[in-house]
Amino acid sequence: MSPSDMTVSQLGEFGLIDALTEVLGTSELGPDSVVLVGPGDDAAVVQMSDSRMVISTDAMVENVHFKRAWSSGIDVGVRVAAANLSDIVAMGAHPTALVVALGVPSDLPVEWALDVARGMKKEADRLNVVVVGGDVVASPIISVTVTAIGAPRERIITRAGAQVGDVVAVAGRLGWAAAGLAVATRGFSSPRVLVDAHRQPVIDYDLIQSAFDHAHALCDVSDGLVADASHMAKASQVQINITTEALAIADPLRDMGLALTENPMNWILTGGDDHAFLGAFDQANVPTGWTVVGQVVAGSGVTVDGSAFIGPAGHTHFAQ
Amino acid sequence: MSPSDMTVSQLGEFGLIDALTEVLGTSELGPDSVVLVGPGDDAAVVQMSDSRMVISTDAMVENVHFKRAWSSGIDVGVRVAAANLSDIVAMGAHPTALVVALGVPSDLPVEWALDVARGMKKEADRLNVVVVGGDVVASPIISVTVTAIGAPRERIITRAGAQVGDVVAVAGRLGWAAAGLAVATRGFSSPRVLVDAHRQPVIDYDLIQSAFDHAHALCDVSDGLVADASHMAKASQVQINITTEALAIADPLRDMGLALTENPMNWILTGGDDHAFLGAFDQANVPTGWTVVGQVVAGSGVTVDGSAFIGPAGHTHFAQ
Repeated sequence: MSPSDMTVSQLGEFGLIDALTEVLGTSELGPDSVVLVGPGDDAAVVQMSDSRMVISTDAMVENVHFKRAWSSGIDVGVRVAAANLSDIVAMGAHPTALVVALGVPSDLPVEWALDVARGMKKEADRLNVVVVGGDVVASPIISVTVTAIGAPRERIITRAGAQVGDVVAVAGRLGWAAAGLAVATRGFSSPRVLVDAHRQPVIDYDLIQSAFDHAHALCDVSDGLVADASHMAKASQVQINITTEALAIADPLRDMGLALTENPMNWILTGGDDHAFLGAFDQANVPTGWTVVGQVVAGSGVTVDGSAFIGPAGHTHFAQ
Repeated sequence: MSPSDMTVSQLGEFGLIDALTEVLGTSELGPDSVVLVGPGDDAAVVQMSDSRMVISTDAMVENVHFKRAWSSGIDVGVRVAAANLSDIVAMGAHPTALVVALGVPSDLPVEWALDVARGMKKEADRLNVVVVGGDVVASPIISVTVTAIGAPRERIITRAGAQVGDVVAVAGRLGWAAAGLAVATRGFSSPRVLVDAHRQPVIDYDLIQSAFDHAHALCDVSDGLVADASHMAKASQVQINITTEALAIADPLRDMGLALTENPMNWILTGGDDHAFLGAFDQANVPTGWTVVGQVVAGSGVTVDGSAFIGPAGHTHFAQ
């Protein structure tokens, strides 16, 4: 029986770790690698390009963040890696390495766990990032916790730098993953383009890095545009006014809004799982590919078209 | 109603994050701190003392690694922090910072989650380590995943350095946590000293650091002495011969072995949760406080009193 046909309990803990390590391709580390010690020891050792380091952690839990009926292991691996990598680049930093803690049920097909590793590797490869270590534990439900580290550029870009007179601009898709989740929740598997957006975010890392030189403040839109703009406004002690006219409603969102009798602008304003980016810039220095969606003024909080936003600003866990 | 009387869903995600951040004491970071950006942004930024960094991650899952009936939130926080910190020091490195991903059920009392943070802080404070960030997610069972980073000394101490002619020595307790788990599993809450050993490891970090100058190889005993000696033997391409005569059986272990008709030496040889340390040293350079328990010879694998060890060498998840 090949590992692909086994369950986790049939293969065993150390067999699974070996198989995951092989998928991640970190078992043979060359002398030029930034990884000085890879998986298999007490800890991994990484050569950084800076003595400062950026670190972020994100967890995804089965039936909370994903369902096996809708998402493959590859989808989950891509998503959890992307969620972490986007946090690192949102600090104006370059990601270096990931570690992963994988909780798996005993009866999980090994192939599903290996697909998580394949998905992580697929996303990490886009930025030449290596998975350097991890932990595998038994769990009644699948959980994947990834921690990403990175090296900052000279200037660290936090949420706290937005200045009165700046514009705010976004890069990347907004609302697609939320629309896809709405589709999947209703039991539909099409339009595929929306369900796929829920399954795996599509992040244009070049677009983010093009903003590093000019952004006064930068953040990952993981909680929703209004929610994350609120975080930026609070950290920067300014007010951010968003104009929905600047937020184009793509055809699939418009069509699905009509089909589900939902206002697609709500997905755009509150959906976070696309991992778009929100930046504050001098009006003259908005990078190519970014869309200006609002203004930074004196005050506090966020307005949408001049008013306080009605409704939940973004997804929150534990909402009653 | 104070947060202490609330459930997680009553307090909400951001309220819980604020309360946890307050417990962890990282909300006000001074200019002298090694933490350049603390919790609340996309990622944390840490000033390291070296451009190399050591990273390790460990997860603990309710009903797999702990039960709420036996362990408090503080116990779990101490354990998960200790498991990570011990991995960092086992590389001959000094821990710098922790991040945590906390999965919590909606109906969990907030106080329990805050106790996890208190336990983490308690253990981290022993080494002046700071919790710099994290993620809180909904989960049907409690899961705590901690990632630790640290700065290596000039020489990184892996498992791969044991040399023929070395002795192997241990520092710290062996078998206590395993005996405590055996007691708790049978529904007993005494002897307290053993149950407490399961609840929280007691790590003498000074003893580990005293070995940094001399250890040829070093590892955390997290899988069990025989299992971890096997890992060291394999990585070092040597054979390690353990002598049980050198492993004193403490009175509580002897008494409990008699009471449960178990051989207490099995707990000592296979229990991992005490986070003792195993090192290979020149015979003349064994640090004070370490106990020589075996020899490094040419060959492969591990012997115990001259024979292959009978039985499982340590705990493995997913065992059938």
